[in-house]
Amino acid sequence: MRFNVKTFNISTPEPQVLLESEDCKVLGVKVNDRVMISGEKSTIALVSYADGVVDRGTAYMSTSLFEKVGTNKDGTVDIMFAHAPDSVRYIRKKMDGERLNKEQIEAIVEDILDNRLSNIEISAWLTALYINGMDIDEIADFTMAMANTGDIIKFSRKPVFDFHSLGGVPGNKITPIVVSIVAAAGLMIPKTSSRAISSACGTSDFVETFCDIELEASKLMSISENVGGVFAWGGSMNLAPVDDMVIRIEHPLGINPRAQMLASIMSKKVAMGSTHLLVDIPTGQGTKVPTLEAAKAYARDLMDLGERIGMHVECAITYADQPIGSAIGPNLEARECISILEGNKHPASVVEKALECAGIIFEMAGISNGVARAKSLLESGAAHEKFLEIVQAQGGRADLKSSDLQPGKYSYDVVATHSGYVHTIFNKEIVNVAKIAGSPSDKGAGLLIFKKKGQRVEEGDVLMTIYAESEAKLKRAKEAALSNNPFDIEGMLIKRVADIKPR
Amino acid sequence: MRFNVKTFNISTPEPQVLLESEDCKVLGVKVNDRVMISGEKSTIALVSYADGVVDRGTAYMSTSLFEKVGTNKDGTVDIMFAHAPDSVRYIRKKMDGERLNKEQIEAIVEDILDNRLSNIEISAWLTALYINGMDIDEIADFTMAMANTGDIIKFSRKPVFDFHSLGGVPGNKITPIVVSIVAAAGLMIPKTSSRAISSACGTSDFVETFCDIELEASKLMSISENVGGVFAWGGSMNLAPVDDMVIRIEHPLGINPRAQMLASIMSKKVAMGSTHLLVDIPTGQGTKVPTLEAAKAYARDLMDLGERIGMHVECAITYADQPIGSAIGPNLEARECISILEGNKHPASVVEKALECAGIIFEMAGISNGVARAKSLLESGAAHEKFLEIVQAQGGRADLKSSDLQPGKYSYDVVATHSGYVHTIFNKEIVNVAKIAGSPSDKGAGLLIFKKKGQRVEEGDVLMTIYAESEAKLKRAKEAALSNNPFDIEGMLIKRVADIKPR
Repeated sequence: MRFNVKTFNISTPEPQVLLESEDCKVLGVKVNDRVMISGEKSTIALVSYADGVVDRGTAYMSTSLFEKVGTNKDGTVDIMFAHAPDSVRYIRKKMDGERLNKEQIEAIVEDILDNRLSNIEISAWLTALYINGMDIDEIADFTMAMANTGDIIKFSRKPVFDFHSLGGVPGNKITPIVVSIVAAAGLMIPKTSSRAISSACGTSDFVETFCDIELEASKLMSISENVGGVFAWGGSMNLAPVDDMVIRIEHPLGINPRAQMLASIMSKKVAMGSTHLLVDIPTGQGTKVPTLEAAKAYARDLMDLGERIGMHVECAITYADQPIGSAIGPNLEARECISILEGNKHPASVVEKALECAGIIFEMAGISNGVARAKSLLESGAAHEKFLEIVQAQGGRADLKSSDLQPGKYSYDVVATHSGYVHTIFNKEIVNVAKIAGSPSDKGAGLLIFKKKGQRVEEGDVLMTIYAESEAKLKRAKEAALSNNPFDIEGMLIKRVADIKPR
Repeated sequence: MRFNVKTFNISTPEPQVLLESEDCKVLGVKVNDRVMISGEKSTIALVSYADGVVDRGTAYMSTSLFEKVGTNKDGTVDIMFAHAPDSVRYIRKKMDGERLNKEQIEAIVEDILDNRLSNIEISAWLTALYINGMDIDEIADFTMAMANTGDIIKFSRKPVFDFHSLGGVPGNKITPIVVSIVAAAGLMIPKTSSRAISSACGTSDFVETFCDIELEASKLMSISENVGGVFAWGGSMNLAPVDDMVIRIEHPLGINPRAQMLASIMSKKVAMGSTHLLVDIPTGQGTKVPTLEAAKAYARDLMDLGERIGMHVECAITYADQPIGSAIGPNLEARECISILEGNKHPASVVEKALECAGIIFEMAGISNGVARAKSLLESGAAHEKFLEIVQAQGGRADLKSSDLQPGKYSYDVVATHSGYVHTIFNKEIVNVAKIAGSPSDKGAGLLIFKKKGQRVEEGDVLMTIYAESEAKLKRAKEAALSNNPFDIEGMLIKRVADIKPR
């Protein structure tokens, strides 16, 4: 059927064409069905109704879709019914609890990448994955299919070490420390990180306060091969790009299916050419991994998956019941991180975690007494030197100091309203207050935490300071902290048990 | 945050606002998150990115959304982050395989109705329903919640008989016959039907060839109470309207979750005030219900559900391996249906099925020997008289004759290419050819089938005639029939077994 064309200037990820519903009847299509549109070229689009907006015989489409199609010589396009791609049938199979083979998984991944699947279909796919899952062989195929949607980096140096944290614990600023220690030992660790998705501050959010994080692949390779490490933003390269398209749909549903999560992490590591990977699994209340059992299951999955895709994977299950270190927020985390490298004294939680992780990577590389080796590289200043070398290679200052990074000028002290012991620090509330204060887009926004779990506090002691770059945000963050206090302070006696019967 | 407004003239079922991505960062929202937009009034909308289309500080929305909101005095609107409704958490619960209570199910149904859930969320809901299902008590709550989204008709006459077919078998034109017989006995049966969704011709599609089917509720009630029956289109009333919104999402996924299907049928019956319902379950290859076991499971579900919502439900499992009767398509089905009422001789399949169904309804009403009673009402002409009374009440002609309904003027005879017995008639191919010929929108399009299963045919015998209203459609239908022949003709000897060993 032949249509005139009218365009509108809105770009949607889904290619959509709006048609009058009577025209749809004649075409035999309904809302969300597909049609083939042909002018100079042909493409597939999803149908919506345009009653009252355009007349019969007119196809209403975005300028971006129109540019893909062009028109016949007389300015019209031909439109006809088009079948859904095969991948829709494979999504149905997963809904029915069946296994998918490599080709079927590849078809789904490629059709998501090329916008051939609608939001409705991708949502059904993720829901089916969430409920019915995948076995580890399917996840391996899924991982490779996702990696192959983007660039694959091939280093001339081997082995390629890598480090990844599942995240979910605030204040986890160890990445630049681990990378600096590992590179200081002469190993290569081209580390890419992400920005905050739901957290208060991702590694990239605080690293960009002191150097460039958007590196092109060629630059990332040359720095890694020459200096030994980078702290780059993964988003600046074309690594497993289909992942971002899926996140758009996962996010409103608040789900992250296990198969999708594992394939998402590992596909980016495959794309980075990693041969040896350490995964940090922060475990505890208020994180993604609440229990030790869940952490062990993730570790087993990751190592099984590594074996199937030919990557040496180890896991560190780490304590995450409360924030790591004192600082939350870009400038504050950067300052704490650099200060540790400078050799200043800091809460044991950050330093120990960084040394343990670097130590495991050393042992993966065949270096014995890994933690001791990591400790000596940190204490000798070798790691700090390597850190500054990397910072400079990424366009930062050679004389960078922790004191260069300062919090926002508005601050508020949250004090203890009664004496006792810190029983719990709620990660979720900590993150919430920091985000309301402006983190991570306001670089000076965030929190400094002065009391950790088990510490004795007296009435009036400062528990944490909130920093912000505007008075309005500070006020809102303060209100959030006072109405949902992140600190739970109790007397040491949790429960008094009376009437204990003699045995 | 304050925004200028720019509007576009596209109506989408989902209320959408497009914002520049940097503005989204400041608002703390991502694609598919919700925002509250406030001008004169407030409403919730879903966020998309509008980079390159509008500048920072501008909100781009449809005129229909804009009309809901208005602006502040200075022409701006205020936009802030808004939480997802609670129903999203209940969808998550169903994804986790949990039971939902009445309030939770009502929240989901109401939020779908009021466009508070996005396509992504509704897709996840239907997928979770498809995989995890509902128990019969949940389905009863679901049914009532769906019924309460629209009007509930209250007849002054009781009991209210009703009849429903699960559909899926072509040529099933028995509804006007059943209604006419039942009403001729003095019972009230206000029957609403639907148009074709994926079939070649729904009851409403052929009934509208001889009378009005779009009746307002008041007219439907008065005809039913005075004449005893109607054959109306359910879509013209506001019965369980949420159902249509769900179909929009089910359709591209090609699923119809059991819970959704049962609640969809029964909510419309609750809305019609039905007290006694007979459900026809066409069973056989190429229908929705392929096996007797599946049919029995549906029957059990429907009867259990009826018990919980206080409706007397019985089921008829009917034979559906091939089309019912000879005619497929609006005018052809209307002609066959009226001709049976006129007392002409016709294939036993239609007449028998109509009599059996009317007979069961009679027995539900306490009339013994139901089938015999139905037969006498048909043969005496009482049913025909009642039929014409209803037709007239619905604006049709009092002197309507079956010969008034004629097929399209273009026709093609499909003949047997070899002699043998009709082994199979594929419903799916029959439907496909009829739709390509133009059914149901071209009223004269369709098929007449001359040979049914088990009949002997000789080479050159006409198996069926295809009718169309245009030469082009006839040509395409003919090609479809020749490339995917709906008839499978074999010799009577299906398999020759040699070497039978003596016992």
